Amino acid sequence: MAENSKKIKIVDLKRVKVTGGLLGEKYDTVLRSVIPYQWKALNDELDDSEPSHAIENFKIAAGLSTGEFHGMVFQDSDVAKWLEAVAYQLAVNSNKELKKRADEVIDIIAMAQQEDGYLNTYYSVKEPGNRWTNLRECHELYCAGHMLEAAVAYYHATSERKLLDVMIRFIDLIDSLFGPDEGKKKGYPGHQEIELALMRLYDVTGEPRHMNLAAYFINERGQKPNYFLEEWEKRGRTNHWSPFATWQDDYNQAHLPVREQDKAIGHAVRAVYMYTAMADLARETGDESLKKACRTLWENVTNRQMYITGGIGSSGYQEAFTFDFDMPNDTAYNETCASIGLVFWALRMFLMDGESQYADVIEQALYNGVLSGMSEDGNRFFYVNPLEVKPESCNRRHDKEHVMPVRQKWFKCACCPPNLARLMTSIGQYVYFQDEGGVGINLYAGSRYQYEAQGNPIQLEQKTNYPWEGTVSIAVGGASGQKFSLKLRKPGWCDSWKVMINEQEEQACLVKDYLTIDRSWIDGDRVELVMDMPVKTMYSLTELQENAGKAAVVRGPVVYCLEEADNGSNLSSLILKDDAHFHVEYDGSLLKGVSRITAKGVRETVAGESLYSDQAPRTEATDLKFIPYYAWNNRQDGEMLVWVRV
Amino acid sequence: MAENSKKIKIVDLKRVKVTGGLLGEKYDTVLRSVIPYQWKALNDELDDSEPSHAIENFKIAAGLSTGEFHGMVFQDSDVAKWLEAVAYQLAVNSNKELKKRADEVIDIIAMAQQEDGYLNTYYSVKEPGNRWTNLRECHELYCAGHMLEAAVAYYHATSERKLLDVMIRFIDLIDSLFGPDEGKKKGYPGHQEIELALMRLYDVTGEPRHMNLAAYFINERGQKPNYFLEEWEKRGRTNHWSPFATWQDDYNQAHLPVREQDKAIGHAVRAVYMYTAMADLARETGDESLKKACRTLWENVTNRQMYITGGIGSSGYQEAFTFDFDMPNDTAYNETCASIGLVFWALRMFLMDGESQYADVIEQALYNGVLSGMSEDGNRFFYVNPLEVKPESCNRRHDKEHVMPVRQKWFKCACCPPNLARLMTSIGQYVYFQDEGGVGINLYAGSRYQYEAQGNPIQLEQKTNYPWEGTVSIAVGGASGQKFSLKLRKPGWCDSWKVMINEQEEQACLVKDYLTIDRSWIDGDRVELVMDMPVKTMYSLTELQENAGKAAVVRGPVVYCLEEADNGSNLSSLILKDDAHFHVEYDGSLLKGVSRITAKGVRETVAGESLYSDQAPRTEATDLKFIPYYAWNNRQDGEMLVWVRV
Repeated sequence: MAENSKKIKIVDLKRVKVTGGLLGEKYDTVLRSVIPYQWKALNDELDDSEPSHAIENFKIAAGLSTGEFHGMVFQDSDVAKWLEAVAYQLAVNSNKELKKRADEVIDIIAMAQQEDGYLNTYYSVKEPGNRWTNLRECHELYCAGHMLEAAVAYYHATSERKLLDVMIRFIDLIDSLFGPDEGKKKGYPGHQEIELALMRLYDVTGEPRHMNLAAYFINERGQKPNYFLEEWEKRGRTNHWSPFATWQDDYNQAHLPVREQDKAIGHAVRAVYMYTAMADLARETGDESLKKACRTLWENVTNRQMYITGGIGSSGYQEAFTFDFDMPNDTAYNETCASIGLVFWALRMFLMDGESQYADVIEQALYNGVLSGMSEDGNRFFYVNPLEVKPESCNRRHDKEHVMPVRQKWFKCACCPPNLARLMTSIGQYVYFQDEGGVGINLYAGSRYQYEAQGNPIQLEQKTNYPWEGTVSIAVGGASGQKFSLKLRKPGWCDSWKVMINEQEEQACLVKDYLTIDRSWIDGDRVELVMDMPVKTMYSLTELQENAGKAAVVRGPVVYCLEEADNGSNLSSLILKDDAHFHVEYDGSLLKGVSRITAKGVRETVAGESLYSDQAPRTEATDLKFIPYYAWNNRQDGEMLVWVRV
Repeated sequence: MAENSKKIKIVDLKRVKVTGGLLGEKYDTVLRSVIPYQWKALNDELDDSEPSHAIENFKIAAGLSTGEFHGMVFQDSDVAKWLEAVAYQLAVNSNKELKKRADEVIDIIAMAQQEDGYLNTYYSVKEPGNRWTNLRECHELYCAGHMLEAAVAYYHATSERKLLDVMIRFIDLIDSLFGPDEGKKKGYPGHQEIELALMRLYDVTGEPRHMNLAAYFINERGQKPNYFLEEWEKRGRTNHWSPFATWQDDYNQAHLPVREQDKAIGHAVRAVYMYTAMADLARETGDESLKKACRTLWENVTNRQMYITGGIGSSGYQEAFTFDFDMPNDTAYNETCASIGLVFWALRMFLMDGESQYADVIEQALYNGVLSGMSEDGNRFFYVNPLEVKPESCNRRHDKEHVMPVRQKWFKCACCPPNLARLMTSIGQYVYFQDEGGVGINLYAGSRYQYEAQGNPIQLEQKTNYPWEGTVSIAVGGASGQKFSLKLRKPGWCDSWKVMINEQEEQACLVKDYLTIDRSWIDGDRVELVMDMPVKTMYSLTELQENAGKAAVVRGPVVYCLEEADNGSNLSSLILKDDAHFHVEYDGSLLKGVSRITAKGVRETVAGESLYSDQAPRTEATDLKFIPYYAWNNRQDGEMLVWVRV
């Protein structure tokens, strides 16, 4: 794998336009609905929702308003994520009004920065004397990381340095306070994020100190003596959230040095943000021990602790990973942000190792556990993504109080919607990639990409109705004999395919699961990839006891579910027959256009006077009607089920 | 039903001796092991267990020792329950040493009583000024109830009044403080118990004020304004346990007047102790509205919220009932005490209405959810009784932290083992009953009962290997033509039976599910009841989604389970075949003698590299080996499963 290191490159977002298909539609929804909706939220203009106060906090810190800080200790990060999403939008679609609004926010942020470069409204407004005294719980470095990501993105999109310079000043301050040198703090973030942001900054500045600071935070983590324990002693054993002892060191992956960690544990978002930065650093430095740790953790997460939807972090308690094969469907946490973080990490693993398995997981998480976080109209959200929902049970059972059976308007801790916005607005970077030999496609989506081959501008135009159809056509424009390879990812789910070039079938070479077409291209060349996309019934390893006797219905990358709206209640009484005769039908009027699946099944009924009886269930034939999992709870409230009895 | 009211009588424990079979064996285990073991616990003589301090608290309160109060606010009740169990033991089996020990304890208790009759070591030692300021949380009336039950039992057993007089003095004090009269407190217990104890006292004293106080506590409950809220305001909004608001009024069934309660809710033990007293009071007074409430609640508990093991209170959070059909198997709480309380209640419902359905539930709870609480040797206990256990999951999952996968030596809150002891030592009262026409048998167990017919002493001797065999023989001794009816309960599980009298088959009349034999009896008459006892596969109503696609294996009253010790791990991969060919074999060397059941089944395996694949499971034939549920975790630790895939 090593030969791929540093050879694969992320594409410049300005050169990609996602125009159609499901990803295009979701991209549009984010632009049209989520970003403006989130702006309202940040400015406390949503009805019936807890006010965010996030913009107001910055105004107070900037001296433009008066009052108290309100919201979570990491409230600033909501503004940062909004700005980052706006930056990605502006990279592709100019929007003067939005740009003006963003610039105004950046002006306020700059004013909120303190003399010495410090920037955090919670500490500036509420606890000015206590900076850097509670890294474990209080998210200063986390918020800095998010704002740094926004700054890098805004600079990329607009070439304007204002926010970038603000953040470089702040990073300079942080760099002067943390590190191995005598007198500096030996700390690291309680919520990882700044590490990956610093790697992105390094990508822009090329300044070794930026990468070194990321490396310091990564390498210092989990060393003894435990920094978090020492800072807790030092500040007089006070806590921001909860008694110290209830959060173990593994909650924020500080239980072991990162290279010794071989199982994902603790808070899932913290974990995958850290793994993302580890992969970035390993790729950049060629550090084999760090690469090995990344691959071991990847194997553990994706092959021992990941739901079929790409959901991770099964436990509502501490929003955390637990242990291998512990994946309850009804109490599953599967935070939307965790699946988003998994996509971030997967992209870095792909850049590091060039293997299609990473893009498979990007696709799996994206079409299922990520998109499930946003409603059809982009104004209702899921934070938690279980695979089985019975509303009464969620509403009344204490151990399911984290599971909302209905999409929510907003959250007190509103990390997920803006995270989804910044992922979807940067989706172009997941669709295409470049390597030394040419250009590749990881995700199939109606889109255009401006490639450059031997100095010549080449246009690739991808047309497809993926994921509802398995046919993708790529038109090459502007070429005049340039040689480059076009690599088309053969998804893990795909067992049968053909490739046509200018309507002639070709034996495209399969290199590491990429169909690789090497040729001299001329204007008007047209490649067509036709993937068979049958409905599959998927089973779990025996060790995954929750799914014993059950199967999930999957077509292409899309996991399907039963919803009460189509199948009535008591979904657990439905059984998929062996000869299910799956029928797939695209319905443009359903859920903004989805393929629905119908299958033969039976409904079991045990009726009678008594709770228990020796009467075996009666069965009657029925059709089971499946819709894509991501689209559930867009029509009416009710039960939902992914793993169906067989 | 009304005609039965007050006509059915509980038998005098002194006249029953349970000698053999499973109940006899468990009775012996309690005498031989649990009562001495518990005595050690009360005196802090167990190794590796949190000290109880319960006896020491009484010594301190009595001025015989110095130091602080330690333990739960209801620690006194452990001593009371021990004394009560000892009393039942002494009623049947004289034991001078034990009697001497009990008398010494009673002497200490009497010395701990304060001048005005007050008796509670927590308040006497720790908070002397705060009596009766926190009925909701602090168990003063609960502890009084338990000691009153012990006093009544000890008086019955020994005819000695010392503890009874102590408690009557205390009850006089309570009666002077609580009630409808002006100036008295309008309160009632935060944990119900004293109500049923007062009804037992009334049974001894015949004093209307004793019944009236019970009635007051029952009738005042749930009236507005809410007493608990008012006392909380009055004491300055302080809490003993947790913030006031986290405990709703329905936690202790104070949300509605008792006659308006139609669904069991809140803390399960509190609930069933209250229902027990309600049934006692309703029977005694003939109060039809109270009878109706009892029957409605009975129907809700047993037909909507009861596990097949007789376990109730499915939620670990607040040890509580939740809502209809909410019965998860793996997180089930099913406190041993709750099933014991259900047995208490069922007996009162039987005395009130004379229907065998109540005795069916006594049997169901006893042989399953109650006996599961005690190990084979009577020195390890379960507090929580789930129907599905995977040890790693219990040890590592936060939402299962209440589920112990291994029997425990003792508990910080040690309510269950002594409760089990007092139930098992009084089991004779559940075996036989008397009504106007004669004598009846509710439970089948090797035993002798001294009956009196028209002034003549009659001996009934019951011989049986129940529940392993369905044959019961009853020999009548000492009769010389006396006429009385013998009623043999036809269990709900029994579909086919025959009755022999002196080896001749008889058509015994089935009256309300009692096989009723009316005749003039003579010495040496012998009745034999032969009940077919096939293995049954039991199914749940469709609404009970946890059990969809699964069945429980039951034989007679005994619910069976699969254990890892017999079947290997991953019990959820085992499937019971339709043609299971159940094979029943009594094994005297297994678990002190049980019938084991073997059945044809298959083991499913999905093996491979990936967590999910489209390869259907492989199956191989295997024998499923079942043991009685109550006996699980007596050999080695591991998985356990009641509801098996079919």
